[in-house]
Amino acid sequence: MNEPTLSPAVVIGAGLVGASVGAALVQSGVDVHLVDVVSSHARVAASRGSGSTEAVDPADVRLVVVAVPPAKLAEEIAGALHAYPNATVTDVGSVKGTVLADLRGRGIDLARYVGSHPMAGSQRVGPVTSRPDLFVDRTWVITPHDTSRAAAVLAVNALARACGARIVSMGATHHDEAVAQVSHLPQLMSTLTAARLNDVPDEHLSLAGQGLRDVTRIAGSDPRLWAQIISANSEAVRAELQAISATLSALLESWGDADALRRLLTEGRRGTRALPGKHGSAAADYAQVVVTIPDAPGALARLFADIEAAGVNVEDVRIEHDPEREVGYLAVGVAESARAAVEDAMTRAGWTLRYTESL
Amino acid sequence: MNEPTLSPAVVIGAGLVGASVGAALVQSGVDVHLVDVVSSHARVAASRGSGSTEAVDPADVRLVVVAVPPAKLAEEIAGALHAYPNATVTDVGSVKGTVLADLRGRGIDLARYVGSHPMAGSQRVGPVTSRPDLFVDRTWVITPHDTSRAAAVLAVNALARACGARIVSMGATHHDEAVAQVSHLPQLMSTLTAARLNDVPDEHLSLAGQGLRDVTRIAGSDPRLWAQIISANSEAVRAELQAISATLSALLESWGDADALRRLLTEGRRGTRALPGKHGSAAADYAQVVVTIPDAPGALARLFADIEAAGVNVEDVRIEHDPEREVGYLAVGVAESARAAVEDAMTRAGWTLRYTESL
Repeated sequence: MNEPTLSPAVVIGAGLVGASVGAALVQSGVDVHLVDVVSSHARVAASRGSGSTEAVDPADVRLVVVAVPPAKLAEEIAGALHAYPNATVTDVGSVKGTVLADLRGRGIDLARYVGSHPMAGSQRVGPVTSRPDLFVDRTWVITPHDTSRAAAVLAVNALARACGARIVSMGATHHDEAVAQVSHLPQLMSTLTAARLNDVPDEHLSLAGQGLRDVTRIAGSDPRLWAQIISANSEAVRAELQAISATLSALLESWGDADALRRLLTEGRRGTRALPGKHGSAAADYAQVVVTIPDAPGALARLFADIEAAGVNVEDVRIEHDPEREVGYLAVGVAESARAAVEDAMTRAGWTLRYTESL
Repeated sequence: MNEPTLSPAVVIGAGLVGASVGAALVQSGVDVHLVDVVSSHARVAASRGSGSTEAVDPADVRLVVVAVPPAKLAEEIAGALHAYPNATVTDVGSVKGTVLADLRGRGIDLARYVGSHPMAGSQRVGPVTSRPDLFVDRTWVITPHDTSRAAAVLAVNALARACGARIVSMGATHHDEAVAQVSHLPQLMSTLTAARLNDVPDEHLSLAGQGLRDVTRIAGSDPRLWAQIISANSEAVRAELQAISATLSALLESWGDADALRRLLTEGRRGTRALPGKHGSAAADYAQVVVTIPDAPGALARLFADIEAAGVNVEDVRIEHDPEREVGYLAVGVAESARAAVEDAMTRAGWTLRYTESL
């Protein structure tokens, strides 16, 4: 394969995603130059192996990766197309259609621009902890538009390959509808559930179990970032919310009809089974074995040694904490067919089984 | 303490909860008699140490625990009050108000009845896998009513203590409002999110991450059981859904206003922090360290041995599966202050760190 030349490359925005892209490109032998409005960010990323902060002749640059917050994407992309006249320009934003529309409105030539969205890291907050392998085996959506030149599309494909990602190609609007469904709507449903908790007395919250924690976990994400993401995908997310609103209204109108309620609950269970499970297959029959974790050094290591000695493949694990006592429980997910073997192994090895259940 | 005498006791309904109550009582020295409309269920539970299936003189019975599906509770409780004239009667249903109202409507003396709700096991389905310690350290809500006699309340308290549970006492209506907030509403929010997935093409579902899986996990529960639970708590759940519906309508009306959206997202994050974290404290600052799990026997055991050798307390763990390749990632939650130590220990021991993040 005649791989497009990506070197030298410029990464604009040295946050987690930008710095990780830089590090992956450096490992592929690309000469990477880092630019950030906060120059110390670029220096920190450079010190972590994500590229250099030295200047580069703009005419030489072959690839520019724009990794700035959603609200600043269009401006930075337009600037890069102007500043680097021979480079393919891409971005790593979570929403593609608004940025493209904004760019089109500027009346500039977009032949060298191809949007993309690596599905990793964008929701990570906190200090820069970039990794060259952040995107390994993750999906990287590439969104060519009507006037994207072949060379530009091939260059962005090469970028995703250099980062170790799996490429999925779709149009910007298609991408935005898809992430509205699988990412932005679930985010808002988690937020709506969690926001309600502010009105719940502490005495009631103490009755909460693991289910409430699971439903509300992603509501703990950065509100500023998510406001930008959802605002940028406004139409697609509104359509999803309207669909939920219609189902919710129908549920409230038929309230008291146990059959209608059961049908909705059944539809919900069917929906969970539509989600791909491990290794791309539909969710299989799993069992969960819950064991008390003693408050002793090395307990988890011994526990897993005993499980794995039984020749059982651990599909999932979760720690549940008792909110009042210094005790935790480890919930181990295994194939339903392996449940008895795990129960036996745990009991023989002296662990305290709390319960097992089918999932 | 002069503990009330609970022996002999009758458990009606030998499912997971009933059989586990029976097993815990047997371990406390109580003579337990099991009754189930499906006699084989009672025999299986008896064979697992939950009591006997032999007859008992009804006049001798001191305690009756009714552990049947929600729709049959009132009838069975009324029957037990009649059949066992000297016994305290309790039930283990997830909803208390409707049952009490139904019983009152029958015009019978309820002095010997005290409702209760052990917060464990009620959502477990599948084969009977009863455990005497199912309720250890779990919350057991006891719901005395206006005419509950002291002796009956004390007997149900003694039952919860015998099962190792933590007692919380509140009225039936209060209980039902609380579980509508922390259990029944989250269940329906998960269901609404998951039901929407039936309309999502597989190509889009392949873009889904862990967040969607978390939000929709409890939607995989038994629809028939949940239809009964929510129907029995109809008014309180409707009020919660109406509150969500109002917030959702306001969100749609203000759609396009990024400030309003950010305020809601901020309220959501605040709500997640209202939930008690480990050991009853507010959620602390955690970091998550994500490591590749090699496809090799004993990998998890060695991984935990290396983490624990670093003297780090593991607060949480989660396995993330790559949906297409035979590879998994272990996300280990630790205190933010321990993150650097875990990163160092993992790297020194030769594990592949994917990324770390603040939570």
